[in-house]
Amino acid sequence: MPHPLRLNPDRLFPSDPATRDVARRLYAEIKDLPIVSPHGHTDPSWFAENQNWANPAELLITPDHYVFRMLFSQGVALEDLGVPRADGGPVEADPRKIWRLFAERYHLFRGTPSRMWHDWVYSEVFGIDVRLSAETADHYYDIIDAALKTEAFKPRALFERYNIEVIATTESPLDPLEHHAAIKASGWTGKVVTAYRPDPVLDPDFEGFHDNLVQFGAITGEDVSTWEGYLAAHRKRRAYFASYGATSTDHGHPTAFTANLSQADAAALYQKVATGPVSAKEAELFRGQMLTEMARMSVADGLTMQIHPGSSRNHNEVVFQKFGRDKGADIPTQTNYVADLKPLLDAFGSHPGLTIILFTLDETSYSRELAPLAGHYPALRLGPPWWFHDSPEGMRRFREQITETAGFYNTVGFNDDTRAFLSIPARHDVARRMDCCWLAQLVVEHRIEEDEAHELARALTYDLVKAAYKL
Amino acid sequence: MPHPLRLNPDRLFPSDPATRDVARRLYAEIKDLPIVSPHGHTDPSWFAENQNWANPAELLITPDHYVFRMLFSQGVALEDLGVPRADGGPVEADPRKIWRLFAERYHLFRGTPSRMWHDWVYSEVFGIDVRLSAETADHYYDIIDAALKTEAFKPRALFERYNIEVIATTESPLDPLEHHAAIKASGWTGKVVTAYRPDPVLDPDFEGFHDNLVQFGAITGEDVSTWEGYLAAHRKRRAYFASYGATSTDHGHPTAFTANLSQADAAALYQKVATGPVSAKEAELFRGQMLTEMARMSVADGLTMQIHPGSSRNHNEVVFQKFGRDKGADIPTQTNYVADLKPLLDAFGSHPGLTIILFTLDETSYSRELAPLAGHYPALRLGPPWWFHDSPEGMRRFREQITETAGFYNTVGFNDDTRAFLSIPARHDVARRMDCCWLAQLVVEHRIEEDEAHELARALTYDLVKAAYKL
Amino acid sequence: MPHPLRLNPDRLFPSDPATRDVARRLYAEIKDLPIVSPHGHTDPSWFAENQNWANPAELLITPDHYVFRMLFSQGVALEDLGVPRADGGPVEADPRKIWRLFAERYHLFRGTPSRMWHDWVYSEVFGIDVRLSAETADHYYDIIDAALKTEAFKPRALFERYNIEVIATTESPLDPLEHHAAIKASGWTGKVVTAYRPDPVLDPDFEGFHDNLVQFGAITGEDVSTWEGYLAAHRKRRAYFASYGATSTDHGHPTAFTANLSQADAAALYQKVATGPVSAKEAELFRGQMLTEMARMSVADGLTMQIHPGSSRNHNEVVFQKFGRDKGADIPTQTNYVADLKPLLDAFGSHPGLTIILFTLDETSYSRELAPLAGHYPALRLGPPWWFHDSPEGMRRFREQITETAGFYNTVGFNDDTRAFLSIPARHDVARRMDCCWLAQLVVEHRIEEDEAHELARALTYDLVKAAYKL
Repeated sequence: MPHPLRLNPDRLFPSDPATRDVARRLYAEIKDLPIVSPHGHTDPSWFAENQNWANPAELLITPDHYVFRMLFSQGVALEDLGVPRADGGPVEADPRKIWRLFAERYHLFRGTPSRMWHDWVYSEVFGIDVRLSAETADHYYDIIDAALKTEAFKPRALFERYNIEVIATTESPLDPLEHHAAIKASGWTGKVVTAYRPDPVLDPDFEGFHDNLVQFGAITGEDVSTWEGYLAAHRKRRAYFASYGATSTDHGHPTAFTANLSQADAAALYQKVATGPVSAKEAELFRGQMLTEMARMSVADGLTMQIHPGSSRNHNEVVFQKFGRDKGADIPTQTNYVADLKPLLDAFGSHPGLTIILFTLDETSYSRELAPLAGHYPALRLGPPWWFHDSPEGMRRFREQITETAGFYNTVGFNDDTRAFLSIPARHDVARRMDCCWLAQLVVEHRIEEDEAHELARALTYDLVKAAYKL
Repeated sequence: MPHPLRLNPDRLFPSDPATRDVARRLYAEIKDLPIVSPHGHTDPSWFAENQNWANPAELLITPDHYVFRMLFSQGVALEDLGVPRADGGPVEADPRKIWRLFAERYHLFRGTPSRMWHDWVYSEVFGIDVRLSAETADHYYDIIDAALKTEAFKPRALFERYNIEVIATTESPLDPLEHHAAIKASGWTGKVVTAYRPDPVLDPDFEGFHDNLVQFGAITGEDVSTWEGYLAAHRKRRAYFASYGATSTDHGHPTAFTANLSQADAAALYQKVATGPVSAKEAELFRGQMLTEMARMSVADGLTMQIHPGSSRNHNEVVFQKFGRDKGADIPTQTNYVADLKPLLDAFGSHPGLTIILFTLDETSYSRELAPLAGHYPALRLGPPWWFHDSPEGMRRFREQITETAGFYNTVGFNDDTRAFLSIPARHDVARRMDCCWLAQLVVEHRIEEDEAHELARALTYDLVKAAYKL
Repeated sequence: MPHPLRLNPDRLFPSDPATRDVARRLYAEIKDLPIVSPHGHTDPSWFAENQNWANPAELLITPDHYVFRMLFSQGVALEDLGVPRADGGPVEADPRKIWRLFAERYHLFRGTPSRMWHDWVYSEVFGIDVRLSAETADHYYDIIDAALKTEAFKPRALFERYNIEVIATTESPLDPLEHHAAIKASGWTGKVVTAYRPDPVLDPDFEGFHDNLVQFGAITGEDVSTWEGYLAAHRKRRAYFASYGATSTDHGHPTAFTANLSQADAAALYQKVATGPVSAKEAELFRGQMLTEMARMSVADGLTMQIHPGSSRNHNEVVFQKFGRDKGADIPTQTNYVADLKPLLDAFGSHPGLTIILFTLDETSYSRELAPLAGHYPALRLGPPWWFHDSPEGMRRFREQITETAGFYNTVGFNDDTRAFLSIPARHDVARRMDCCWLAQLVVEHRIEEDEAHELARALTYDLVKAAYKL
C-alpha cells in the first residue's frame, strides 16, 4: 500500500498553537494574491508558442539542477538521467526509465525544498494522492504524461491558472527577443517581460566574449571598438529591452567587486579587454567598472539593478568536461560586500532614484554586511534568499538576521529565480508561509501588533516587489 | 482612530506556555535590579549641569544614528532631520517638522529594536497610550515637549527614576573631565564614572593625531616626543581617569590586530608615528602594539580593557563629506580574533589579574573564535551583543552560539553603549527579558534546573557586570 | 540540603507538547540501538589489559580538555588539576583535592555539554542522586572511587554494558598496534578497531617528523628516501591497519588545502621535505598533495577518508611551553573548502567507490560550502558536528543549515570523537535526542511524514554510519 500524499493546510506553520493561529490568519489574507515573479529563467518560447511539454522527465527532472545534482551526489550517473553530453554522445532517452530512477530515490529529497515543490506539483497540479516511490513510479508517469498532452496543461493555460500577474525572463543583450515579440503580437494578455543580463558582452571571461562583442556591435549598429560606442550599445540595447517590458538588469559576477575609474582609464581598460586576452585581475577590474557604468545608466533610464555575486561556477572539472556548464556544480564562496561595493556606492549609493537589489549565497553577510548597508544607503535593497537558501530555513535565517537592522521596507519580496515553471506557485507559497511564520512570531512575542503584521504580509507578498521592480 | 499603544508585560517572551511561565518567574526576580551601565556614551554635562533637554526632535531623533540612518535609507535627506552639515549650511530647524517626518515613517521601524526602545519611552516615560503615526505626531510632540520642560524630566531626576546604580561615560585622554569634576563637586549622589578611550592619541589615522599628541604632552606634562614619555603620559592619564571613577579602558580599532614588538622596535616605530605620516601597515602595527602596551598597563593599574574592533567607519563618502563622521554609515567587517590577538594573549592572556572584554560586529566569530578563546584564556571575557546585534535576535544568537563553549561565567552582562539616555532602561529590559527566555528554554529542555536559572538570571543582570568592570 | 540530581526522560526535547510527543515516539524506537563509534580516541590498552581505572580525578578530570580548559579560563591553575608539566615538575597529586576543586566550580559548566555528559555518568553509571557541588564533593568521590575498584567498572564490562557494537581508536602509522593485537588474541568478543592517522609521518611540521620518517621506513621495510618508497610504505601500513579492522583514515590538517601535482613534481617536493627543513608554503603544499595521494590509495584499498581541518593548535604559548600540546588551547579558524578541495575533487570527487567525510570547526561553511559540495560530489559526505559543536545547539545548527541542500543521506550519523570513555553513551544519546527533535519539527510542520521520520531516525543513528565507514 503506498503512503498517501496530502498537503497539510498548515504546512510550514509552527506547531505552537498561538503562533500558528496568527500565521493562519495572516496567510489567509495573502495566499490568493497574484504572483509577481520579477526575476526568473522560464523560457519565453513556451508562452510564445504555447506547445505542450513533451513528457514528465523532460519537464520535471532532466532540466532541474536541484534534482539531478542530488541524485548525482548519491551515485546516479548524469547520463542515466538524460542530461545531454557535451560531445553529443548517447544518454538515456527513455523518459519512463528516467522517471523510475528518480522515483526510486525520492527519499533522498526528504527535508529539502525540492521535495516540497514536487509534492505540491503532484498534488495540486496533477491531483495525485499517493506518495512518489518505486512502487508508484508508473502510476505517476502515466497520470502526468496524460495530463501534459491536454490543453489545460499548455503554458498559457497554466500561466492563467497560476494567477501570474507578471513574470520576467532573463535574456542576453544578443537575444533578438523574438519570443517576446511573438507574445506581444499574439494578442495573449499574459504579461511576460524580459530583463537585461549583459554578462555575455560584459564579462571578459564569458565563453565567446570577443565574438559576442562583434555581434553586440552588429545588433546595435554601434562601433563597439571604442569605449564610447560600447557604452552606447548598452544604452541602446537597454532601451530595446525596456520596450519589451524590461524594468531590470541582472549581473552574475563571481564577486561583488566594483570600481570607479576615470573615463580615460576605463576607456584604456576597455581597449585591452576588447582586443585580446586579459589577466584575471584586469577582467575583474573591467567587470567591476561595468557595474558602476550600469548603475550610471540605471540612474538615467530607471532600470532596477540586480547583483547576484559569489558563485564558484562549474566547480567539478570532470562534469564540466563531460556535460558543460550549469550542471549542479556551482558552489557558493565567501563574498565581501563592504569593501567591494564601496566605489559604486560612493558614486551612486545615495542617489534617491536608483534601486540596486543585492543577493547573496553567503549567509554570513546578512547581519554583518547586507543589513547594515541596506539600512543606510538609499539605493540599496535586499533581494530574497537565493538559490540554496530559497528554502524554509533559509527564509527564516534571512528574516531573523536582517530585519532588526534593515527592517522590512528595505527588502523586495520574493523571487522564484527558476526555470521550473510548474512549481512556481509552490515556491511563492513557501515564501508566503514563511513570512507569515516570522510575522506571527513577532506578533505573539509582542514585537509588532497584528494589524501591522497584516499590512506587512501584503507588503512582502505584493507591494514591495511591485515598487522595487517598477512592475 | 489611532491604534492603541500598550506594552505587553510578556513582550519578547516565547509563546509556548510552559517556557513563558518559567521566563516570567525568572524575570520577576530580576526586573527591578538596579541598572549597572559600564559602557556608554551619555554626555556627562547632562548630569553636571542638569538642564532640561530642548525639544523632542533634538533629544530623540537628530542625535540617534539608528533612527536617521533608517530614514535616510528610505529616501529622507539628513538635512530634513536637522543633522548638522559639516559646512555649517542650513538644515531643518523646526523640531516639530522633524518630528512629523519621523512620525509619518514610524512603520519603517517595525521589527527593529529602535521601535521597541521608542515605544517603551513613549509609554513608560511619557505615558502616551496611542501608537505614533502621522495622525498622532502632534499629540506626541505636545506631550513630550511639555514634559521635557519639567523638573521630573531633568537628567538627574530621570537618572534616579531609572534606578541607575552607576553609569560610565567615555572620554578621550585629552578631555579635562571637567563635567565629572563638576558632578563630584555638586554633592549629587548619582554615580557617573568615566572610561579611558585613547584612540585620539593612539591611532595614527585619527583626525588631528599629531596635534592631539602635542596636547597629550601638555595635559600630562610628559615629554611625548619619546616612547618612554608617551607611555608615561598614558600611565599618568589613566591614573587621572581612575581618580574620576574609571575602571576601564576602551579601544575601537578597525581590526583586532595586536603586536608584541621589542621595546626598542616599539620605540623606533613610535618615532616614525609621532613625527610624520606613516603607511597603513605601520599605523596598524602601532595600534596593535599599543593594545599590548595597554594590557601591560592594565596588569599594573587594574583597569579592565574593552576591545571593540571591526567597523568600517564612515563608509559613505558622500555623507562623510557633507555631514562628517558617525552618521550611521559604519558597516561591520570580517574580524579575525584567532591570529590577531595571539601576540597580546601570549604576553598577557594567561594573567589571572587582567580582564579583557572582547566585542564583535562579526557574529561568525561567536562559536568559531570568541567562545573557544574565552573558554580558555583566564584574561578574556565576552562582551554582550554589540551595536547592530544589541537586539532580541542578536541576543538570542549570542547565547545560543557561545554558551555551550564559554559557559555563562565568561560573559559580562549587558552594556547599553548608548547616548540615547531616555531609552537606557528599555535597552537593559530587552537584555533581561532575552536572557530569561534563553534560561527558560534551558530549563524546560532540562538542560539546567530552575534554581540554577534564577542564580544565572541575577548573575547576567547584576553580578557579572559588577565583577568584570570592578564597579 | 543538596539539590537532587535527576535525568529527565524528556531532556533536550522541545517544550511544545505536539513536537515533544513526536520526538518521544521517534526516540523510543532508536534509543536502544547499539552504539557504533567510528571515530574516537579511547586508549586501546584499556580493552587489551582490562585494568581498573585509578581514581575519579584521573579518569574524569585530568585528561578531559573540555573540563580543564573551562576551569583554567576561570583562574584555576592547570597544576592544581594535576595536569602534568612538560618539565616533570610537581603538580597536584591528591585526586580528592583535584576532585573538590572541580566540584566547587561545577556551576561554571551550566549550559555546556560537559555538564550533560557528566550528569549522565554520575546518575546512570554511578547511580548518584544529588547534584555535584562543594557540599557533595566527597560523597561523589567516595562513591565513584569505590565503584571504579570493582569488576563491573573494568573497561570490557562497561563496553558490554554500554552496548557498543564497534569502536574505532586512532593510531599513528608508527604504532605497532600491539594493544589491538592483544585484544584480538584475548578471545574477548568486543569489537575494537583502529584507524590510520598518518599526520606524524605526513605533516612536515609535526614534532619529530624526520625521525618519524626513519621509523616509518624501519617499520615497513620500505626505502622512504624515495617518493615511490614513501608511498609504498603508506600502502603497506594501511594494509596492516586494515588487518586490525581499520576501515578509515583520518587527517587533521591546519587547512583543507589540497594539491594535485604531477608525480615528478611531487617526488621533487618529497625530496625537499624528507631531507631538510622546508618553508611553511612547501609544508602546506606537501600536506595538500598527500591528501590527494591518500584519496588515490583509498580508491584502491577502500578505506574511508576523514578530513578534520581548521584548528589553530596550541594557541597559548605560555601553556604550550609549560604543559606541552593538546591542553585545551586549540582554537578554530576560518576554513575554505571550495577552493582548497578543488584539486582533490577534480581528481577523485566523482569517483563512485570513494567516501571522503568532511568535518568543520567553522560553522559558516555548513550552508555556504559543505552542504553544496556534499549535495553534488558522489565521494563527499558530511561528518557530524565536531568538537566545540558536538553539543545540542551545534547539532541543531548543523541539521538546520545542511539538510535543505545536502539532505539526510549525505550525512554519516554521529561520531563521539572522545577519549572520555565513560560518557560515550551520553554523547550518542545527545545526538539521538537532537536528531529526533529536528525530525519531530519537520513532522509537525508537515515537511516530512512521521513514517519517514522513523526511517530517518534509524538511518541517522545506525544505518548511515555503518555504510559510510563500512563497519
